[in-house]
Amino acid sequence: MFTLAKDTDAPPLTEQIVRHYAQRIDEGALLPGARLPSVRQLAARLEVSVHTVLVALDRLSGLGYVASRPGAGYYVQRTAAQAAAAPAAAPRAQPATTTSGFTHSVLSTDATLLQAGAGYLPRHWYEDAIAPATLARSLRESAEAAVVPPVQGLPSLREQLAARLARRQIPARPEQLLTTFGASQALQLAARAVAVPGDAVLVDDPGYFLLHSQLAALGLRVVGVPREAQGPDLDALAALVQEHRPRAFFTQTLLHNPTGASTVPARSHRILNLAEAFDFVLVEDDVYGDLAGDAGVRLAQIDALRRVIYVGSFSKLLSPSLRVGYLAAPLSLTERLVDLKLMDVLSGSTLEEALVAEVLRSGRYHRHVLRLRERLARSRGAAIAALQGCGLRFDADAAQAGGVFLWAGLPPGVLAPALVEAAREAGIVIAGGHMFSRRGVGADRLRLNAAWATDARLLGFLKAQLGGAG
Amino acid sequence: MFTLAKDTDAPPLTEQIVRHYAQRIDEGALLPGARLPSVRQLAARLEVSVHTVLVALDRLSGLGYVASRPGAGYYVQRTAAQAAAAPAAAPRAQPATTTSGFTHSVLSTDATLLQAGAGYLPRHWYEDAIAPATLARSLRESAEAAVVPPVQGLPSLREQLAARLARRQIPARPEQLLTTFGASQALQLAARAVAVPGDAVLVDDPGYFLLHSQLAALGLRVVGVPREAQGPDLDALAALVQEHRPRAFFTQTLLHNPTGASTVPARSHRILNLAEAFDFVLVEDDVYGDLAGDAGVRLAQIDALRRVIYVGSFSKLLSPSLRVGYLAAPLSLTERLVDLKLMDVLSGSTLEEALVAEVLRSGRYHRHVLRLRERLARSRGAAIAALQGCGLRFDADAAQAGGVFLWAGLPPGVLAPALVEAAREAGIVIAGGHMFSRRGVGADRLRLNAAWATDARLLGFLKAQLGGAG
Repeated sequence: MFTLAKDTDAPPLTEQIVRHYAQRIDEGALLPGARLPSVRQLAARLEVSVHTVLVALDRLSGLGYVASRPGAGYYVQRTAAQAAAAPAAAPRAQPATTTSGFTHSVLSTDATLLQAGAGYLPRHWYEDAIAPATLARSLRESAEAAVVPPVQGLPSLREQLAARLARRQIPARPEQLLTTFGASQALQLAARAVAVPGDAVLVDDPGYFLLHSQLAALGLRVVGVPREAQGPDLDALAALVQEHRPRAFFTQTLLHNPTGASTVPARSHRILNLAEAFDFVLVEDDVYGDLAGDAGVRLAQIDALRRVIYVGSFSKLLSPSLRVGYLAAPLSLTERLVDLKLMDVLSGSTLEEALVAEVLRSGRYHRHVLRLRERLARSRGAAIAALQGCGLRFDADAAQAGGVFLWAGLPPGVLAPALVEAAREAGIVIAGGHMFSRRGVGADRLRLNAAWATDARLLGFLKAQLGGAG
Repeated sequence: MFTLAKDTDAPPLTEQIVRHYAQRIDEGALLPGARLPSVRQLAARLEVSVHTVLVALDRLSGLGYVASRPGAGYYVQRTAAQAAAAPAAAPRAQPATTTSGFTHSVLSTDATLLQAGAGYLPRHWYEDAIAPATLARSLRESAEAAVVPPVQGLPSLREQLAARLARRQIPARPEQLLTTFGASQALQLAARAVAVPGDAVLVDDPGYFLLHSQLAALGLRVVGVPREAQGPDLDALAALVQEHRPRAFFTQTLLHNPTGASTVPARSHRILNLAEAFDFVLVEDDVYGDLAGDAGVRLAQIDALRRVIYVGSFSKLLSPSLRVGYLAAPLSLTERLVDLKLMDVLSGSTLEEALVAEVLRSGRYHRHVLRLRERLARSRGAAIAALQGCGLRFDADAAQAGGVFLWAGLPPGVLAPALVEAAREAGIVIAGGHMFSRRGVGADRLRLNAAWATDARLLGFLKAQLGGAG
């Protein structure tokens, strides 16, 4: 067995593992069809975490050197020379187990894929969301305007949003609101408004993987705060704050992605006190919050928007065809946020902003969300029962929790990446729990979408895979 | 008279001028109503450029310390204490003479403003662009899709774009195309794909001011290449390339903003040879190129898209209500561009991308652009004659040039910033030539939009202002 260099100047451990196997395969020391040691064996022999090994194998798989067979480990597939000789026209597919590969799968136009791991809902769940008459009216209005909206967003939309937030006791005036192309843009603008490369930022762990990647891509040090059933682990949070002096903590108070749990108000209170004492900003991701209703208690409400940047979106619940998100920020940050948006994209879309404003004004969005809540509540119960029948496990309060996501435990011995890859080969997109963690946890979980989780294809696949592994 | 510190450690010269006057006004050494020395006097006494003085006065004006009276210079307006005592509710207006202030004015929803300096066309010029039936069809289709499109963009749109570029002999396959939220996003993605903070990039000078700001905000060193009637000054370009070793040259080959001129093919050929010899990328901004028709010769065509990133948009000519732009890049850069877009905004809008695809497919966009060209040709001739009557001067070939912009020379002694500010007070938005330059030229020019330039309000204002100053 080879050994890894572990001094601080050495290349990253995953990099060393990848290089070792790539070289051995290229040299012919390992031939196509040869079986690699198991993930746990490799981790033990190399004295690294299972997570590190999984990341390295993912990379090798993405490079075409190895392929996994669910339940049976990783096999050598082909050499670099063989890979290079393959037709150049075929785009390099990213492995389904990486965040980027997963995201491209979720956004694929391949209608045969079953999107059981997506953050969106099935197409027909959106059908009642936008009335044809509303569309026609907002299109006429935006055509009459026929201008790019102000950088900060269309005034009529910002007024509707302010009224909506006021009902949740979040005192955001229209001049504190900024529209964005989805929550993704809002989150990266918030990060850039408060932190510079090299700064530390905290995130929920497990938490939304694309946010983790976004923050890392900005050159920030991304530190995971363990997430418990009641919210972030406060002792861990306090220790991490003292150690890293972060500029911000990105957290999802309600219907947290991927666990579905919500932070209880007593914890939110203590999180806000910590933020005050150590002078960091809270960026509250509330993209699923409309499903929790006005009753859920948000950080922005307790704090009255003094130290919180609140992020919302209409892409998840109104229509994934639209890219309209927004943020509400303390007035001291608004100008900087507007400048950052101006330099990135100039401004938003009058057509889409007018459309969302009209859907809000008409009351139709409110009724649509109520229907989604009822529908999801029914789906969650049925899905949990069916998935338990396949060998998946759930936390005690999973049925009571709301929202889109189910955070399912795998049977002992089954690891998410291999299962995700096998599912993708069967045309099923599921989200491996390993993607959601900066701390190397979650490889024994899947995130499933409650709306798709009773699909017969998914259940059949899981039964076939897990029946033999449990 | 005070003197400026000019050693390398000293604060920027504009900063020193601003501080000096702010302090004198705060101390009461200069009282409201007092007249400052003229711009040229100040420049001569302080031994700095007129441009430096103008920037400093802009800043002081933005801070509320001074105000300009066109043709009569700058006057002390109020002290900082007086400014602070003003109602806090009033948002800090940015001076109309800065790029940011100008942009906010252009994107204002205030319908009483005359947008004589905008890059857009009057509302009714867009009316024939999108048929109601097209809208309805693409909305239905995007609702049926009801998903976020692939990060790279909706396949049907990328196919339409590839076919369109093929007609211009630009060999872009759909997998080399990336949709963006307007050309602004395309330009910043292109910059980030090829350069890192500290790198030098070249721009047309004069050139599109928001691009200059975007690139500077990315931490790039932005160096202006003098633009002549036939295109970039090749001797200057060669010298700047040797001196700065840039990673990219951002240039607008056709219907250049602000001059309206196009680069001749012989210059494009030599620019491409320089790019090859010194290994930099050309980013070709072609947002007005559809007005030049398929006959215009683009860098991307001569180069066959090997070293050129080509940027287009539908916001300018189809509808400013939409934010759909795109870029076509060498295949070696596509993956990086897609990753950058994913981390910024996740993906585009299915609704808008489906709409643009349908408008292209139907042939309606083509007919709409033909009408715009005829209309603009008529407007340009009439506008030039009317503006000459107000004392503005034009280059010999201005009438023959096409497109949206008129690059008008001011009478001797009149400087753009003061005129822009006076216009804004009269509810007229015009673009001062000083905004377009990194080299401090252009303060004797205005950029006007040919579609608005015969408006009686604008002509009346110019006559009143320039009649006394010429």
